[in-house]
Amino acid sequence: MTLEEKLGQLGSRWVGNDMQAEEEAIAPEETLNVAPMQDVFAASGTIPLEEASRDGLGHLTRVYGSHPLTATEGAAEVVRQQHIVLANSRLSIPAIVHEECLTGFTTFGATVYPAAIAWGATFDPELVERMAAAIGRDMAAVGVHQGLSPVLDVVRDYRWGRVEETIGEDPYLVALLGAGYVRGLQSAGVIATLKHFAGYSASRGARNHGPVPMGRRELLDVILPTFETAIREAGAGSVMNSYSDIDGLPAVADPWLFTELLRDRWGFTGTVVSDYWAVPFLATTHHVAEDMADAGAQSLTAGIDVELPDTLGFGPGLIGKVDEALIDRAARRLLTQKIELGLLDADWTPEKSVAAAAGTDLDSADNRALAREMAERSIVLLDAGTALPLADGVARLAVVGPAAADPRTFMGCYAFPNHVLPRYPQAGLGIDVPTTVDALKSALSGTEVVYEQGCAVIGDDKSGFAAAVEAARGADVTVAMVGDLAGLFGHGTSGEGCDAEDLTLPGVQAELIEELLATGKPVVVVVVSGRPYALGQVASRAAGLVQAFMPGEEGGAAIAGVLTGRVNPGGKLPVQIPRHPGGQPGTYLLPSLGAENTGVSNLDPTPLFAFGHGRSYTTFEVDDLRISATEVPVDGEFEVTVRVRNTGSRPGDEVVQLYLKDLVAQVTRPVKQLTGFARVPLAAGEAKDVTFTVHADRTAFTGRDFSRIVEPGELDVLVGTSAADLPCTGRVRLTGSVRVVGDRDRRLVTPVTVEKV
Amino acid sequence: MTLEEKLGQLGSRWVGNDMQAEEEAIAPEETLNVAPMQDVFAASGTIPLEEASRDGLGHLTRVYGSHPLTATEGAAEVVRQQHIVLANSRLSIPAIVHEECLTGFTTFGATVYPAAIAWGATFDPELVERMAAAIGRDMAAVGVHQGLSPVLDVVRDYRWGRVEETIGEDPYLVALLGAGYVRGLQSAGVIATLKHFAGYSASRGARNHGPVPMGRRELLDVILPTFETAIREAGAGSVMNSYSDIDGLPAVADPWLFTELLRDRWGFTGTVVSDYWAVPFLATTHHVAEDMADAGAQSLTAGIDVELPDTLGFGPGLIGKVDEALIDRAARRLLTQKIELGLLDADWTPEKSVAAAAGTDLDSADNRALAREMAERSIVLLDAGTALPLADGVARLAVVGPAAADPRTFMGCYAFPNHVLPRYPQAGLGIDVPTTVDALKSALSGTEVVYEQGCAVIGDDKSGFAAAVEAARGADVTVAMVGDLAGLFGHGTSGEGCDAEDLTLPGVQAELIEELLATGKPVVVVVVSGRPYALGQVASRAAGLVQAFMPGEEGGAAIAGVLTGRVNPGGKLPVQIPRHPGGQPGTYLLPSLGAENTGVSNLDPTPLFAFGHGRSYTTFEVDDLRISATEVPVDGEFEVTVRVRNTGSRPGDEVVQLYLKDLVAQVTRPVKQLTGFARVPLAAGEAKDVTFTVHADRTAFTGRDFSRIVEPGELDVLVGTSAADLPCTGRVRLTGSVRVVGDRDRRLVTPVTVEKV
Repeated sequence: MTLEEKLGQLGSRWVGNDMQAEEEAIAPEETLNVAPMQDVFAASGTIPLEEASRDGLGHLTRVYGSHPLTATEGAAEVVRQQHIVLANSRLSIPAIVHEECLTGFTTFGATVYPAAIAWGATFDPELVERMAAAIGRDMAAVGVHQGLSPVLDVVRDYRWGRVEETIGEDPYLVALLGAGYVRGLQSAGVIATLKHFAGYSASRGARNHGPVPMGRRELLDVILPTFETAIREAGAGSVMNSYSDIDGLPAVADPWLFTELLRDRWGFTGTVVSDYWAVPFLATTHHVAEDMADAGAQSLTAGIDVELPDTLGFGPGLIGKVDEALIDRAARRLLTQKIELGLLDADWTPEKSVAAAAGTDLDSADNRALAREMAERSIVLLDAGTALPLADGVARLAVVGPAAADPRTFMGCYAFPNHVLPRYPQAGLGIDVPTTVDALKSALSGTEVVYEQGCAVIGDDKSGFAAAVEAARGADVTVAMVGDLAGLFGHGTSGEGCDAEDLTLPGVQAELIEELLATGKPVVVVVVSGRPYALGQVASRAAGLVQAFMPGEEGGAAIAGVLTGRVNPGGKLPVQIPRHPGGQPGTYLLPSLGAENTGVSNLDPTPLFAFGHGRSYTTFEVDDLRISATEVPVDGEFEVTVRVRNTGSRPGDEVVQLYLKDLVAQVTRPVKQLTGFARVPLAAGEAKDVTFTVHADRTAFTGRDFSRIVEPGELDVLVGTSAADLPCTGRVRLTGSVRVVGDRDRRLVTPVTVEKV
Repeated sequence: MTLEEKLGQLGSRWVGNDMQAEEEAIAPEETLNVAPMQDVFAASGTIPLEEASRDGLGHLTRVYGSHPLTATEGAAEVVRQQHIVLANSRLSIPAIVHEECLTGFTTFGATVYPAAIAWGATFDPELVERMAAAIGRDMAAVGVHQGLSPVLDVVRDYRWGRVEETIGEDPYLVALLGAGYVRGLQSAGVIATLKHFAGYSASRGARNHGPVPMGRRELLDVILPTFETAIREAGAGSVMNSYSDIDGLPAVADPWLFTELLRDRWGFTGTVVSDYWAVPFLATTHHVAEDMADAGAQSLTAGIDVELPDTLGFGPGLIGKVDEALIDRAARRLLTQKIELGLLDADWTPEKSVAAAAGTDLDSADNRALAREMAERSIVLLDAGTALPLADGVARLAVVGPAAADPRTFMGCYAFPNHVLPRYPQAGLGIDVPTTVDALKSALSGTEVVYEQGCAVIGDDKSGFAAAVEAARGADVTVAMVGDLAGLFGHGTSGEGCDAEDLTLPGVQAELIEELLATGKPVVVVVVSGRPYALGQVASRAAGLVQAFMPGEEGGAAIAGVLTGRVNPGGKLPVQIPRHPGGQPGTYLLPSLGAENTGVSNLDPTPLFAFGHGRSYTTFEVDDLRISATEVPVDGEFEVTVRVRNTGSRPGDEVVQLYLKDLVAQVTRPVKQLTGFARVPLAAGEAKDVTFTVHADRTAFTGRDFSRIVEPGELDVLVGTSAADLPCTGRVRLTGSVRVVGDRDRRLVTPVTVEKV
């Protein structure tokens, strides 16, 4: 291969964005970007695919994900574009086709699964794996090779718009569920992409792309383990950079992250792709590069292999600016992947790559059943209060609030209806999304169900309050459904570029709830959101409180199921619910001075509902703690067993959670940290023993000299049903000398066994 | 000296705290700590001074600052305690007597100067120096050797309670004014103590003592230069640690900070004292030490020389735990200081050390004049609006709000009336503090001035709203004075341990202003506060807007002077005034993605009023930019000259501000950074040339490899009257190769000359 041909493999082309630019020109009234500054780059002019692929091309960008195309239309477009790539280059190497797939395949008419934050609430890695396998099968069927998911960022600030795209605020929860996603997607032959490497979630003031103030210890102990786990435990094939800088150095230009750590220490062998325009951003927003070529050279040197979504920094300008060995390195990685994908097989054709497209229903009944299962298992009953489940005898039920009847409130910002369809209002949703009002009406045949919106998610219009209050007054019980509308870059209350100033419910929804509560009638509050909102003013007065993280296309039935009691909720909070709108950032994973009331600050950092909290319509007891040893060598392991019993009258799930607390350490340590969990289904009266096998590695942290160590000393062992409900407490002493833990052999997982007793 | 005797020099005793503990036992209804967890430590039992000084004693803690004692009573107590120290130890070495002195000598009856954030607003290092010299003279007269000021923390989050104790959010402003304070205090023979080393201001969520997420580059470029400057330019004699951890390592246990950086690289030769109980906190709140002895060993090893306020970690438990050379090292530093202070002189006696006390008026007329001058020069006219200065013909003036008539609202949390006197309500203020209402009444003899409080600073009582609104309706103009009441550990809205959840005015004050504005009558809003509050809802509707940072005992007259026009305001904002209550943290000193609207986040980080903003009753023009060279070597310097002219009809001051913007750098750089300033008095019509001599060192920053470098490349030169009003723009290119700047020879200051034209 010539140098130019190798370079060609490092680039990409987003033909669909040219079309968007054209549409924008036709209807310029509103910019609805799907990627940051997309309009700026689209307007700056791009080159035809023919020209872009003259020396070959690495990736084709979002053929399915840019416009409302059917699977058949998309497949035809893939074939057209692949043929251009093949025809215009000497070596005729096909391009990798990549798409977004965070809440399902991001294309028209495809199943919209719950948002990632809702996966977190399931505490169920196996279910996430099944979902991702279904997503992968649909994508593979239509010729897609790589999916730009999962997001493995750990939540550090609830105000950040992309909280909904994450799996939660605990690295272990994110790691296990993220690894499940990777396994599932890649089981279908679609490469998973871990993002965003690394630190994106901790930007100052929660502003998207904002500078990240973070030391290396926090990076190593909180942010990076999710990636480590998904690579080592699930073999993830690709990694994408974070847009942000950490302490002044943009990730995309950081060789420590992408080469020293990811490659040399962790042994990652897949590809690193740039987030959209992250390479040019070195010049245009970070101002650490002189021009595009400089930006490209810095990124390639750091360890970025492929530039997305278009070639700007990785173009011919690189020649002469970087050592050819760097181009070889990246090209070899990408071509290895193409070989593994079969793209260089003699019999590969564009037509064959999409052969299954015609017969594929992207929203099949199986998909919908899976979406329903995830939605039902993700809903968190914060407090059953006095009204839940809704009694059979409710004669009149008022349903109020924008989330009760707007399907878009159920979907994340990477769901096609929120991501792309706002540009195409005539296209409909492309899928059927029954609302909660519909579902309640059919579930409660003997009840009169009236609906009043009250207000929209966004805006300050209170003209609907009176009718909503009137409905509440006339009803036995009111269900108020409030929350988010996901969008992009300011066109939503949650999602990429939709950051919050504080954690007050968006728009006038908090006021609507106040007015409903003021009626004195029982009001059940259901928050359907992508981030936690402060509910300190509401919790004690509501007749029931439910948190449904964006539950996807089957969310309506799932929420109705929980409200009526058809579904016994078992979801748990992957993020805390705060008391107050201010006081951010702060999650549960902090040392005493960050997480507890110590008397040195008036601010109370304790949450209203703790990480891991979630109630059920049955009751559970966790007791009978047994620890296999009181002294364990720093390279040994111990077993922690508890008995969990369903002490109520109906079947349900409890998530048994193991936390460890390091009493004294070289550096400040979290007051407690999730170290193992298991979602356990239990029939009424049934009991099971849950045993965690904890290797001392699971206590490792980054010591004063920045090596990862296991330290001798005492650990509190805490087991229960949330970070704040830990009735089983014991103690283990690690013995021996400080042990440095290797990068490649550290145990990242706590095995759990569940046994009937 | 025996080992025990050397160790004795590293300890301290706070006899006054025992007395407080006794009082607490008598009147236990409320804990009013003056230091974090003071009650916990007092209750845990301490030893008599006789026993504590058996082997000698390093420091006596706050003899004057713990109770309402007159200078004479305090002097007698110093004599008593020093005699115990002399009599009980073999070597009879007197103790250093230290006190607080941030807003003046923190003792009963002493002048309360404006809070440090108000010094920042003066932009006047020479005035701060004169104030500190006056403070130092008073302290020296009564036998005090060391003052625990200034605070050189750079504001990173406006919610932090201690913002009022800082000089502002720009390192250069803090450095120059802080160096002025050090020079002044030490000119009187009192050792200045730089605090808090380092990073305290950037705690997560702005919680006092909270963990600080920060990389080393931010630490080196933003946090540490203030200390570097005060040590190298002003010869500060002592440094005190920060309570917080940075990225997991508490400062007090960090040898990099206190030994490698401070001693080995910077060459600091003074003492390092611990903040109160910071040594035991390693064991009790940070949990990085097993016990007090371990905490002491870690602190001493890191480079803490003296433990305050009592000996807990630096006691006999250290013997055998640390290398004796570490004890020698600390003892030598402290004894050197005692020798320099004359404490080991043959003729030193306790009585002589306080000989001047009897004749000292701690609130002399000279002090009060200086306090007045500082207050007047610190007030910031945000917007003269339609009503300022108040016209002569105002027949009826309503003054409303808690800050108009409560002297405590003028004072910082380290002013004795706010710091200690809440424990002694019967003691009065100890000083005369005329209110703004008093001052307006005497200034506006032809105007009927009516006062209504409306509400208190703290609490949700709105029962006074009606009378306040009534007063506003009946008046030609209303002056609404709202803001903070400083206190400690939750007993205030600003001050140590009084952090804010968001930047809404405390209590119901924002609602009071809304109701006043709703009258439709002109309302001038005066914010008297320790931190900036969000005024986005108020600014466009107020008839005038004034920011008075806690202006001290002469604040009433100073504010009245600005309102009536007797004083032409020239203060400038040392912190931005934000638009919105949320969105923290964020100051002006951030790169583009943190400080500007880039389209990737919906959140607007731009302030309502910029850093450096402040209006006058006259007008100024800044123009005629001249730069001495367009190309300058990376080790060279250039001159920037502008002409500033008073284009109005009355004399006034303008602060001419020079900012530099680094267009492309190795790492992300602030969008602009204050590099020079001069407060210039100008008669009506007068013009002056202001010339800044900028050495290339002033552009230095911490590069990718963490060395401090001057980089070749282009700089924008921006001169004007605030960070947002920079009419003079030019460009300079630094030429040559990247230059590493030495720690001890870096130019830290930009000399300025002002010449009449």
